[in-house]
Amino acid sequence: MTGLWLLLSLFLGSTEAGKLLVIPSDGSHWMGMKPVVEELGRRGNQVVVVIPEASLSMGPSEHTTTLTYPVNYTKADLQTHLEGNLTEILSTDLSSDLSKFLVFFYQMHVLQKFIIRNAEGLFIKEDLMKKLQDYSFDAIITDPFEPVGVIVSEYLSIPAIYMQINLPCGVDTLASQSPSPPSYVPQRNTHFTDKMNLWQRCVNLVRTLLQPMACKYMHTEADEIASRVLRKKTSVMEIMSRAALWFMRFEFAFEFPRPLMPNMVMIGGMATKKPKPLTQELEEFVEGSGEHGFVVFTLGSMVSQLPEAKAREFFEAFRQIPQRVLWRYTGPVPENAPKNVKLMKWLPQNDLLGHPKVKAFITHGGSHGIYEGIYNGVPMVMLPLFGDQGDNVQRLVSRGVAETLSIYDLTAEKLLVALRKVISDKSYKEKMTELSAIHRDRPIEPLDLAVFWTEFVMRHKGAAHLRPAAHELNWIQYHSLDVIGFLLLLLVTVIFVTVKSCMFCFRKCFKKTQKKKKE
Amino acid sequence: MTGLWLLLSLFLGSTEAGKLLVIPSDGSHWMGMKPVVEELGRRGNQVVVVIPEASLSMGPSEHTTTLTYPVNYTKADLQTHLEGNLTEILSTDLSSDLSKFLVFFYQMHVLQKFIIRNAEGLFIKEDLMKKLQDYSFDAIITDPFEPVGVIVSEYLSIPAIYMQINLPCGVDTLASQSPSPPSYVPQRNTHFTDKMNLWQRCVNLVRTLLQPMACKYMHTEADEIASRVLRKKTSVMEIMSRAALWFMRFEFAFEFPRPLMPNMVMIGGMATKKPKPLTQELEEFVEGSGEHGFVVFTLGSMVSQLPEAKAREFFEAFRQIPQRVLWRYTGPVPENAPKNVKLMKWLPQNDLLGHPKVKAFITHGGSHGIYEGIYNGVPMVMLPLFGDQGDNVQRLVSRGVAETLSIYDLTAEKLLVALRKVISDKSYKEKMTELSAIHRDRPIEPLDLAVFWTEFVMRHKGAAHLRPAAHELNWIQYHSLDVIGFLLLLLVTVIFVTVKSCMFCFRKCFKKTQKKKKE
Repeated sequence: MTGLWLLLSLFLGSTEAGKLLVIPSDGSHWMGMKPVVEELGRRGNQVVVVIPEASLSMGPSEHTTTLTYPVNYTKADLQTHLEGNLTEILSTDLSSDLSKFLVFFYQMHVLQKFIIRNAEGLFIKEDLMKKLQDYSFDAIITDPFEPVGVIVSEYLSIPAIYMQINLPCGVDTLASQSPSPPSYVPQRNTHFTDKMNLWQRCVNLVRTLLQPMACKYMHTEADEIASRVLRKKTSVMEIMSRAALWFMRFEFAFEFPRPLMPNMVMIGGMATKKPKPLTQELEEFVEGSGEHGFVVFTLGSMVSQLPEAKAREFFEAFRQIPQRVLWRYTGPVPENAPKNVKLMKWLPQNDLLGHPKVKAFITHGGSHGIYEGIYNGVPMVMLPLFGDQGDNVQRLVSRGVAETLSIYDLTAEKLLVALRKVISDKSYKEKMTELSAIHRDRPIEPLDLAVFWTEFVMRHKGAAHLRPAAHELNWIQYHSLDVIGFLLLLLVTVIFVTVKSCMFCFRKCFKKTQKKKKE
Repeated sequence: MTGLWLLLSLFLGSTEAGKLLVIPSDGSHWMGMKPVVEELGRRGNQVVVVIPEASLSMGPSEHTTTLTYPVNYTKADLQTHLEGNLTEILSTDLSSDLSKFLVFFYQMHVLQKFIIRNAEGLFIKEDLMKKLQDYSFDAIITDPFEPVGVIVSEYLSIPAIYMQINLPCGVDTLASQSPSPPSYVPQRNTHFTDKMNLWQRCVNLVRTLLQPMACKYMHTEADEIASRVLRKKTSVMEIMSRAALWFMRFEFAFEFPRPLMPNMVMIGGMATKKPKPLTQELEEFVEGSGEHGFVVFTLGSMVSQLPEAKAREFFEAFRQIPQRVLWRYTGPVPENAPKNVKLMKWLPQNDLLGHPKVKAFITHGGSHGIYEGIYNGVPMVMLPLFGDQGDNVQRLVSRGVAETLSIYDLTAEKLLVALRKVISDKSYKEKMTELSAIHRDRPIEPLDLAVFWTEFVMRHKGAAHLRPAAHELNWIQYHSLDVIGFLLLLLVTVIFVTVKSCMFCFRKCFKKTQKKKKE
């Protein structure tokens, strides 16, 4: 293996090839990480990807070695618990904030179970852990959404790069010590924008103060595993605070501007590519839409079906628009389904969004779809389902490039109003074109940036020069509470001594005067 | 002019050439800005540089148009007041912190006078202002060290890019709303590092709290001019808060890691270039040093002389080292000056620092010299004189790549000890080589970055997507003080109502029990 490797390195002319360990997370997380990992392999680095035997979307990738570890669940379990669970949720009425929160909490709980089983699965496999140790990796790229990679980085004592997007409970801002003033940086899952009213700012402040506790709670089991594996009392958050770099899968054509730390690298929109021409069949369908154009509709990789009643509302709305519709849908089709709708198992989403005749994009608001929409400048109607999608939606709605609807109380009428608005009101398209221009206008491609910084960390064994001294302070010191206490003490002492001295002098003088008077 | 311009644009193949106004500041400030400005001109943008008629180092630059405005001082005045003042200071004993602060304050006062005269000079010249208006610039690059460019940006209503380095009173962090936790971000001119003890953190906190007042004081006259010129009550700080971008002339191989804002672009070390071969005469001199190598010594562009007694200490020290010395010095030379010292009016500093035989760099700690030293990996002995140099020095000393001495109580002995240390203790060279490797290893050259972002601002009429919502909050809102007040009020109300209700219930029950007892 190593011989072949050296040969490959020589062939590629790379003399500085490094050894990189990758521990990704499933689903869209892996989709976001894969391009970087494959490019690093292509450039001659030795890239080893470690994944569980059962997964929804992870598997061998180009120019990399994939190693698996057994887990006590199957792909079918994942499908039942994650995808099945989504279909179930879609049949429920979740219009209230409380029900949404409970669903979010429940989903996180289910996810956490699988996440913990991954960590248990890897660390129990001693021969694999030994093998990883023998590789002497230069660095690890991992998704901190799962603690397994985080713990491995500490176990192998290698610099860690965390590639992340909207971690729950703001792990990234806490672990990187990135200031997030609650007055204009909305907390995850609040669905607030960066312009909050007094009440929203109250909620946001309380949420900000509660975040460390929420993180602690979320990591309870992971912290136990970390302490057991590393044979010392530690926590996932503590390990994460030693990150070499944070790859942030966002950029400011999408995210609200907020403070960053020097070891954060923004790589949002990394996966977007120039659209390719459509197949002849698709081209004919969309060209047939004439001047009205067409609409693209998907609810992400995990939702290809809908409860029948809900689907009916969509069909009803589509029947009433002059546009043609391309819909990724595998559910039951009503007999009188409108002729302008083409149902497909899979859509070449980016290629469709890049077509000149596209008018709108109906999406759940996953980050991949959003960046493809922004890249191609297509106004959106957004139906957030779960996770970070509710927050994502706000970022586009507040920019005037999208409308949002709740999927839970959706009707054909509501959908029609929103769809007609984003298509006929020219401001949506104009603002989206502007946003697209800003997004595409960058000094360096985010993929190149991610590759550069990963190789930088491998070359220099970390990125210590980007690590703020904040990490060496405890909470009291960081917030200058000891300083404030000390200064107050100083002030009180000075006042006390001054008052006492004055009183002493006054008494002396007073006594003298009295004595004089008596005399 | 415009015809020629179009022709040039066509020739260069640039179809998106913009019109850029540049209002620089003198001395090392202009040295830092010149490469960007010239490169922007070379790329086919129409660049107009506006400078005062009298200046130390500013003048026509390549590929740009230079316009001047009259000022009521001469170049000789500048030389007398700034350079002459420095020579005078060097003869004084300034070893105490208070005297250093007073000198800093005095220097700032002198500088401010010239700065204000520049602003007065430009705005009085109505025909020039009219001409600038007629240009319809797409953007302005200016150095906020002088308010003149800041006010012009608002007067012409064009997006402003502020290129700055270590602005006094932290104008940049205040105006950009960049969080600077006083627990680990040392304030300018404190000479603290990012690791402070309790007392230093006390001083730093107080300094942080006083900064807004210091800025207000510093800008008193400038604010008056701004309000007069713009015909509305305004302040320089308010205008600066509308910055499109901040070009920060530092990077983290030098600066301590600290939070950044999205509209900050780090372009530190932009002016450093690959060293060129030396002239035959110089090459012979440095090669003649044998295995001992040579030392480069300059105190910056403004100090080429020293008081005789001080110079004697340097000559004495140099006599006792085996290295040869190249010293930029134009002062009186003692008769028995050592043979290993070569005095020159001007040194090819970067080329010398890039020579394989160089062993150490004696410098005042100006940012240009520092970046050239870092780029070429040369350990330093630093003699900070004024301005930001005291802070700069700490950044290198704390990294173990330099030693610092006070020029005010310098003796030959002290200099010898420091010089021998950085030359013979291998750790200085090792750490400097590492720092150099980090500094050189970047995904994109800082000059290209500066050029890209300037053209970005011209293309998109600003960079609104990078502007944090913090700017729309007042001080109370930003710090969530209204929210805290509101939450406290809510809490007090809840407690009050609860207690009252309990007491009411208790009284009711108590009365009933008493009644029953009576019955």
